[in-house]
Amino acid sequence: MRQSKLFTKTSHSVPKDEESKNAQLLIRAGYIQKELAGVYSILPLGFRVLKKIEGIIRKEMESLDGQEILMPALQPKTNWEQTNRWETYDTLFRFESFYTKSEYALGPTHEEIVTPLLKRFIASYKDLPRAVFQIQTKFRDEKRAKAGLLRGREFIMKDLYSFHANEDDLAAYYEKVRSSYERIYAAVGIGNRTYFTFASGGTFSKYSHEFQTLTEAGEDTIFICETCKIAINEEIVKEQPECPQCNTTKLKEEKAIEVGNIFQLKTRFSECFDLQYTDEKGAKKLVVMGCYGIGLTRLLAAVVEALGDEQGLVWPRSISPFQIHIVGLQGGDEKAQEVYDKLQSQGLDVLYDDRRGESSGAKLKDADLLGIPLRLVISERTLKENAAEWKTRGQKESALVPLDKIIEKVIEMQG
Amino acid sequence: MRQSKLFTKTSHSVPKDEESKNAQLLIRAGYIQKELAGVYSILPLGFRVLKKIEGIIRKEMESLDGQEILMPALQPKTNWEQTNRWETYDTLFRFESFYTKSEYALGPTHEEIVTPLLKRFIASYKDLPRAVFQIQTKFRDEKRAKAGLLRGREFIMKDLYSFHANEDDLAAYYEKVRSSYERIYAAVGIGNRTYFTFASGGTFSKYSHEFQTLTEAGEDTIFICETCKIAINEEIVKEQPECPQCNTTKLKEEKAIEVGNIFQLKTRFSECFDLQYTDEKGAKKLVVMGCYGIGLTRLLAAVVEALGDEQGLVWPRSISPFQIHIVGLQGGDEKAQEVYDKLQSQGLDVLYDDRRGESSGAKLKDADLLGIPLRLVISERTLKENAAEWKTRGQKESALVPLDKIIEKVIEMQG
Repeated sequence: MRQSKLFTKTSHSVPKDEESKNAQLLIRAGYIQKELAGVYSILPLGFRVLKKIEGIIRKEMESLDGQEILMPALQPKTNWEQTNRWETYDTLFRFESFYTKSEYALGPTHEEIVTPLLKRFIASYKDLPRAVFQIQTKFRDEKRAKAGLLRGREFIMKDLYSFHANEDDLAAYYEKVRSSYERIYAAVGIGNRTYFTFASGGTFSKYSHEFQTLTEAGEDTIFICETCKIAINEEIVKEQPECPQCNTTKLKEEKAIEVGNIFQLKTRFSECFDLQYTDEKGAKKLVVMGCYGIGLTRLLAAVVEALGDEQGLVWPRSISPFQIHIVGLQGGDEKAQEVYDKLQSQGLDVLYDDRRGESSGAKLKDADLLGIPLRLVISERTLKENAAEWKTRGQKESALVPLDKIIEKVIEMQG
Repeated sequence: MRQSKLFTKTSHSVPKDEESKNAQLLIRAGYIQKELAGVYSILPLGFRVLKKIEGIIRKEMESLDGQEILMPALQPKTNWEQTNRWETYDTLFRFESFYTKSEYALGPTHEEIVTPLLKRFIASYKDLPRAVFQIQTKFRDEKRAKAGLLRGREFIMKDLYSFHANEDDLAAYYEKVRSSYERIYAAVGIGNRTYFTFASGGTFSKYSHEFQTLTEAGEDTIFICETCKIAINEEIVKEQPECPQCNTTKLKEEKAIEVGNIFQLKTRFSECFDLQYTDEKGAKKLVVMGCYGIGLTRLLAAVVEALGDEQGLVWPRSISPFQIHIVGLQGGDEKAQEVYDKLQSQGLDVLYDDRRGESSGAKLKDADLLGIPLRLVISERTLKENAAEWKTRGQKESALVPLDKIIEKVIEMQG
């Protein structure tokens, strides 16, 4: 894409109540725009990142036999009363129709919808196990929303729900989801700093689990067991200040961001909606459930918090809006255009800074801010060497690569 | 996909207040589930159709240089006051935060967001034209919602907004959008019964335009000029009972469903938000806007209304959830499985009815209800001829095709 056609521009100014690194960098780079506290528009560059994250997550959900659906944001009050959460779910947006006076919840989660939905289709043990997921917009009436995309009043989430005949089957599936989640974090570039974290399980299970990514300005505190490579959250460490796997009390305190959670709901919701099945012997039993969430906008923000630097965003190739950023500087435009056309014709994802009237300094600063992994600068100076300057975002050194080798080298790098 | 793994099932019962053909067929076939009046879950088969419609629309929007974004459902009251629509927009859901007491609109449309958004980035004539679009969930507080996916309280819409330096540029773009829309309706299989329809233009334009699809139970009445192959809506025909192109008064009354609209907003919203640009001579001018909508869930419902028959859904290949439905009947299961594996390995989209314990009659009825374009039945009877029964949905005749020719013939048909 030609940068001169992109409708967004970089900017130096950020709304003054935006304190978080993710909001500051994403707004300055034109990836998002703030509409309200905790409510953002996702602009073209941000949208491309989001779609790549979506693709990575969808692939894993399908490998877990998840069937994709879309449940509504508008949810009936009666369902929330049936689970006893209408009054108690503290971030629930509640409102009514002006005409019908029906009362709605604006869905922050979907147990109240998915449980009766599956009840329509599950009758026998032959209908189990089942897993459904959606990638959908959720809403929370947050008291304070100051963490950019990390804690929005409106946000995009993947939620997977699984349905089993018994707890063993749930437990086995839960482990598979854990592995899928680990592959997702690795794929978006934060695998090495993301910890499987023990959290409180609520009424039905001893533990639930979160995935926590280490960052300097993390909103959570976790305690890492470096032997087991797992962590414990603050709540759990107060009750039990030792590793649940090796029992060491040598735990390292770190700041982190939650990037996902998995939860054995067991019969918490199947009881409320009387979701039963008939087993092999003809006996009625409650279906056993699990739920598994990843906020896509939150994950995007976590990657920015973890990898962004002083100069701006830093994207792993897997989720970068473009793979290659060609920057044409004075005297290099014609050749830059030629290289752009060649890379485009190879089907590569290229952003080409063809803007006239911007200084070289401004263009290079913008490239750092946008954070595309490979930058190719073509200018009068590089053309004297019949070359382009090749620089990887996040690394200091750059190299001159002969123009007649560029295409080949880029294709090689793209694997 | 194996039908035994699909979590949905067909059903004979439909909620009794569902009068529309689209809701009845889609619910019976397990494509959607009703959650509330005007609020549906989209289930796996419905989701696949929706994604295909989305792909067709996205491709056209990109060909119009539309840049894809996602704007929020939660919208600030102040923006709606600025356009004078907070009090007057009759289907606007309005509510407030329990904690902050901020008042929100739940977006039924996005002029109130997109206009100030583009204002941040448009300064000069060099920044024009621009076009942005989204495929996103919208909300309307409908007094009555009894038309299934045709008139939902929550629905999925593609909205495109364009920004121009002058009315001529808008008019030229508007014509391009018209052509794109016509290609979209043709691609989803209703091109031959969809009419470009003159509608009232509001304050700024003489006309806006709708696209109307002829169906027996259409909610709108339109008047067709068979010479010009265009239509006029009821409102316009009252003011002016003649074809706006050839002036004939010979108009044919028909029932139809609106499947899209395009509108020259001109400066209606740029005035409210003071969206100006500086022209070549340094003068400040208002940006001229257009908006263009297609409801995806509505379009899906319109295809059902137009093409569905007594037996159930009828999908054009372009948007069918699967291309081929293999039905294994008694004695044919093993061979059916073999054909399924072969077609799958060719990368084809196949649903395989591998269910045991369903009667042949029930399986064939289900196949008709699901509406997949090509049905291959393999049974003891067809195997006597070493063949499968090949039947196109919507056609009465079927033929036996030798099993050793099946793969070749299917691939040939898929083009």
